[in-house]
Amino acid sequence: MSFEDAIPDYIARVDTVLARTLPAADVEPTRLHEAMRYATLNGGKRIRPLLVYATGEVLGIDAAHLDAPAVAVELIHAFSLVHDDLPAMDDDDLRRGKPTVHRQFDEATAILAADALQPLAFEVLAGPEGGDAAGQLTMVHVLSRACGSLGMTGGQAIDIESEGQRISGDTLRRMFELKTGALISAAVLMAAARVPDLAADQHAALERYAHRIGLAFQIRDDILDVEGDTETIGKPAGSDVAHDKATWPAIFGMDAAKAECDKLYAEGLDALSGFGANAVPLQVLAELIVRRKM
Amino acid sequence: MSFEDAIPDYIARVDTVLARTLPAADVEPTRLHEAMRYATLNGGKRIRPLLVYATGEVLGIDAAHLDAPAVAVELIHAFSLVHDDLPAMDDDDLRRGKPTVHRQFDEATAILAADALQPLAFEVLAGPEGGDAAGQLTMVHVLSRACGSLGMTGGQAIDIESEGQRISGDTLRRMFELKTGALISAAVLMAAARVPDLAADQHAALERYAHRIGLAFQIRDDILDVEGDTETIGKPAGSDVAHDKATWPAIFGMDAAKAECDKLYAEGLDALSGFGANAVPLQVLAELIVRRKM
Repeated sequence: MSFEDAIPDYIARVDTVLARTLPAADVEPTRLHEAMRYATLNGGKRIRPLLVYATGEVLGIDAAHLDAPAVAVELIHAFSLVHDDLPAMDDDDLRRGKPTVHRQFDEATAILAADALQPLAFEVLAGPEGGDAAGQLTMVHVLSRACGSLGMTGGQAIDIESEGQRISGDTLRRMFELKTGALISAAVLMAAARVPDLAADQHAALERYAHRIGLAFQIRDDILDVEGDTETIGKPAGSDVAHDKATWPAIFGMDAAKAECDKLYAEGLDALSGFGANAVPLQVLAELIVRRKM
Repeated sequence: MSFEDAIPDYIARVDTVLARTLPAADVEPTRLHEAMRYATLNGGKRIRPLLVYATGEVLGIDAAHLDAPAVAVELIHAFSLVHDDLPAMDDDDLRRGKPTVHRQFDEATAILAADALQPLAFEVLAGPEGGDAAGQLTMVHVLSRACGSLGMTGGQAIDIESEGQRISGDTLRRMFELKTGALISAAVLMAAARVPDLAADQHAALERYAHRIGLAFQIRDDILDVEGDTETIGKPAGSDVAHDKATWPAIFGMDAAKAECDKLYAEGLDALSGFGANAVPLQVLAELIVRRKM
């Protein structure tokens, strides 16, 4: 089966494992567990888990060895969205067409549900049935760095600080590398950690691919915020402008944003050249990321 | 040197490693890093790191192998305090006699600073210079479980839900086991994970000790909230009553709270009997916890 045809199966797969990993909604504290499930089992695009499985196909890793990193990276993504939406942050009411967690539950529950999603990601990675300890430990290290102040959370801090400010193109790029790129890279590099003897040049090629695609992903998000409609993207279109957010179109213009997205896409594909025909799954995802409408 | 005399050295030790582990305040994003340092390097009692080092003394582990879990457990503790103090949670203005993080900085920075402290704990545990991978992985597993919805964060959720409610004594005990006990136990059991061939009965004895002392710690907190003064405990005395919190004195009465604390202390010491004279460091900490004035 082509990777493109397998995408719905992979999405169903990670959704199934997520549903099994999250504590059931009738386990105490029930309201917290309901909120954790609501935040995670919500029809997300699962781009990051797909990157884990696609990297696995490129490197010839059995999907069964990739469920843990696929679930872990999505739990971290879900955690970050819940906190991003809070009143003290972006103060958003809608996420994927449904009330945000603090709207559906309450603010304290939203804060705590996200706080509990984060360690669950590391618990999944460090599970006793996880395979080789060294590879598991590398995954924990990769993901924890990607979450922290020099990764996703640091990028979010720069984003919040930049609202209403004029920032330089360099700062914008750095913000995107952290806010979005760090977790995209972690998805790819956690899968790579499952191959103990991966050649250094293959590791570097995957790193370069993930860097370019992570940036392209965020620029595409900015473009969609301007050009998409609320129904399709599942959150209010134009919310970046409304928040006076620093975005690629706002700083460089829409044409430059689209050109940069195309350039990063081409560089991402170029990075994969050494993998030959095996690279198809990551090529497919790169195209999906730069062409997506939502 | 007796463990009691070594306590100031251990506190200085963990403070030094914390200061080195946290990104410097002049590293971008600077405001986030300032807040992370403010939240952590604040003259805390470092009870949890002391439990790590004390367990290490009992089991004959070199302190150099315990800095990572000592720092990790304190980073998690610091993270939890920042979120507990938020307006949507306990809405506290003072912590250890100083403005809480959201008061000193702002709410968004407080949310994000704590969000970045949590993964730093796992990054420290999973570091490439960490010794044996299997032991490191066990530490990640122990700490991540202790943080999550069936540990500390779950306990905090029950605490918030119980405000203004009548809850049963059983629910209160369960809340304390999660909210405070889980992290206390993690401190002890992470140190234990440094001994690959630890006998099962020794592991069970340490688990029982930590369980009793964790409960006693929280009951002592409740007692101090009633009997302590604001200056000594560093936060407003009587804040539990003001928040209509479920506490041991409120539900069982003050005399019963003190009796339970003494009983748990005795049971904690009893659990250590198999360690003979080696148990002294953990005995000293148990006494410190049930007798403390702050």
